[in-house]
Amino acid sequence: MQRSDLSLIQRGCEELLLESELVDRLGTGRPLRIKAGFDPTAPDLHLGHTVLINKLRHFQDLGHHVMFLIGDFTGMIGDPTGKNATRPPLSREQIAENAKTYQEQVFKILDPDRTEVCFNSTWMEPLGAAGMIRLAAQHTVARMLERDDFGKRYRGNQPIAVHEFLYPLCQGYDSVAMRADVELGGTDQKFNLLVGRELQKHAGQAPQVILMMPLLEGLDGVNKMSKSLGNYVGIAEAPQEIFGKLMSVSDELMWRYFDLLSFRSTEAIAGLKKEAEDGRNPRDIKVLFAQEIVERFHDRRAADDALADFETRFRYGANPDDLQEMTIPCADRTIPIAQLLKQSGLTASTSESLRMIDQGGVRINGERVADRNLRISRDQTLVLQVGKRKFVRVVLV
Amino acid sequence: MQRSDLSLIQRGCEELLLESELVDRLGTGRPLRIKAGFDPTAPDLHLGHTVLINKLRHFQDLGHHVMFLIGDFTGMIGDPTGKNATRPPLSREQIAENAKTYQEQVFKILDPDRTEVCFNSTWMEPLGAAGMIRLAAQHTVARMLERDDFGKRYRGNQPIAVHEFLYPLCQGYDSVAMRADVELGGTDQKFNLLVGRELQKHAGQAPQVILMMPLLEGLDGVNKMSKSLGNYVGIAEAPQEIFGKLMSVSDELMWRYFDLLSFRSTEAIAGLKKEAEDGRNPRDIKVLFAQEIVERFHDRRAADDALADFETRFRYGANPDDLQEMTIPCADRTIPIAQLLKQSGLTASTSESLRMIDQGGVRINGERVADRNLRISRDQTLVLQVGKRKFVRVVLV
Repeated sequence: MQRSDLSLIQRGCEELLLESELVDRLGTGRPLRIKAGFDPTAPDLHLGHTVLINKLRHFQDLGHHVMFLIGDFTGMIGDPTGKNATRPPLSREQIAENAKTYQEQVFKILDPDRTEVCFNSTWMEPLGAAGMIRLAAQHTVARMLERDDFGKRYRGNQPIAVHEFLYPLCQGYDSVAMRADVELGGTDQKFNLLVGRELQKHAGQAPQVILMMPLLEGLDGVNKMSKSLGNYVGIAEAPQEIFGKLMSVSDELMWRYFDLLSFRSTEAIAGLKKEAEDGRNPRDIKVLFAQEIVERFHDRRAADDALADFETRFRYGANPDDLQEMTIPCADRTIPIAQLLKQSGLTASTSESLRMIDQGGVRINGERVADRNLRISRDQTLVLQVGKRKFVRVVLV
Repeated sequence: MQRSDLSLIQRGCEELLLESELVDRLGTGRPLRIKAGFDPTAPDLHLGHTVLINKLRHFQDLGHHVMFLIGDFTGMIGDPTGKNATRPPLSREQIAENAKTYQEQVFKILDPDRTEVCFNSTWMEPLGAAGMIRLAAQHTVARMLERDDFGKRYRGNQPIAVHEFLYPLCQGYDSVAMRADVELGGTDQKFNLLVGRELQKHAGQAPQVILMMPLLEGLDGVNKMSKSLGNYVGIAEAPQEIFGKLMSVSDELMWRYFDLLSFRSTEAIAGLKKEAEDGRNPRDIKVLFAQEIVERFHDRRAADDALADFETRFRYGANPDDLQEMTIPCADRTIPIAQLLKQSGLTASTSESLRMIDQGGVRINGERVADRNLRISRDQTLVLQVGKRKFVRVVLV
């Protein structure tokens, strides 16, 4: 094991139990079995979900065996109390479809050839009602009530349905069935991850190392990223959306996102921080980050286009909703700027156009136009601006 | 419905919930579905178990449909914590064998042609792990902890394994699967019986009426009858054993046993009480009761023999452990009493035998022998007594 392996594994990690166990296992040289579980009800991943997936990728890069677990067993049950409308029971077909969408998304991060996709119904269904009882016998009510949220609800006279005690046991049993060496989870999963350790001990296995990743803050930098809060970046979103959302985060949050979401090396990120300290505009560094993320989920071309689009749409304060778009046919291969301004309705006449150019009040894609004789080539899209408030997007054909 | 039906159903009953519901259902005139559950690990029934079975018999006598439920599903699980050595997991074969023994015993009380023997594995196994979770969702942790023993253990920091919360739900689900109109149980089962009502409501069924029978006191009249306390009367015990044990109970307990165990009508029992008040020896009434029970589990002949045996063994203070038994072959069909006494070693000679008879010191089965020429028929067993302390049991062949 290389010291740098452990350092990569620990990057961004909130808590690791137990580091010494992990070091021991890495020391064996065999590929470790790395588990992370995902809910099959929400195949629309956002960047918050990718924090764990990125960590799986780190393990994969280090040669370990990644097991991407889809919790289809509980997904098919849904919320059995029927109280939670966001958790309807899913059919096997729906889950298969969701799983497909899931894989399409995660394989933008993980190497499909080195990822085992698992479904826990494989071992949960054969367990049967009797197996569930035997499983439940391996934990006490008192220890369940030690879980923070259960304890609070019990003391606060908020109902806890009995089956809620079974879910941590199911998750723990997954680890037994998968013979997990390491399980990844959010910090909110600590209790359940520990249950896995216990059930493994009970089954005569070495208990899994548990590696908890922080919950990613949303774009607001305060709440955790979540669809319902609207502060998320979906990985299937359009390039412009991803780019624009990421450019909107605070400089502070940007560094946090670098740690948890960038595939740049720790050293490279340290270098960028140094540059920022030395006076480089954080906005430029944010562009690098936003482009990396767009490229990951789309491609390089999309990242470049998103940047160009962003520049024109947002850099000078235009409200994209106000931006009128028009198509202007060109008789020749080029059209004079003064005529284009008039045709787009930004000026009343070519003479007004020329006066505005002379006054320095005309911009194309945010760049000031100095040459009153400039000719613009057709077959491109531009944002024209006259004065502070008049914009139009023109498509030259 | 006859008023006397309700009166028979309520005889000896500790609690009935709800009487009005029972009256309504009896009023429909259809045969009600009567459920009682039994543990397949203890096929050796004692009289304590028969309190419920007798009540099933009452329902059967009134034309209702009796369902004798053997809890094989949990029986096959045993104690999954392994802590309770008295509850090992049973194999399907062991349970089938136990069930057979069970039936042999209960059909001494119930009419086999009108008894449906059910096994809850029939519906519990198809439920599966997912079904168990759905079932568990129908109850809250807080309500489980309201069960007296759970609450005490939780507050007393005594561990409660999570699967213990599932057992009441399994029992309740049995009622759903069996569409029970009435469930019988001990008073210690109240919580579980009520869970059945709730699960039935949840399943859209009318909730079962629950009829709780008291726990039968053991021979000591204090503790509940149980094998481990040794204060029990096993229904498969020898006639003499049953008879002797029942003759040993207090007069007060005898009346309790009459109520819960005798098939005599309530009116007949009231008559016997009256006789006792008018001076009849309670011992004679106890004999009637002991004979009834022996006859139920053996036959009339055995009841008579047991009485005879009891008379000779216990009435005059002989310690049964001291009672020597010997087989004496008879050359003829009869043997003179004087010779028999000599051959059994109770006297040294026939002349001593005759002298003892003349002195009134010889008894057969406790009855004084007056006739010195008495001849005793072979093919019977007798207790011979000479003087106060010399006894022998002889088998004449």
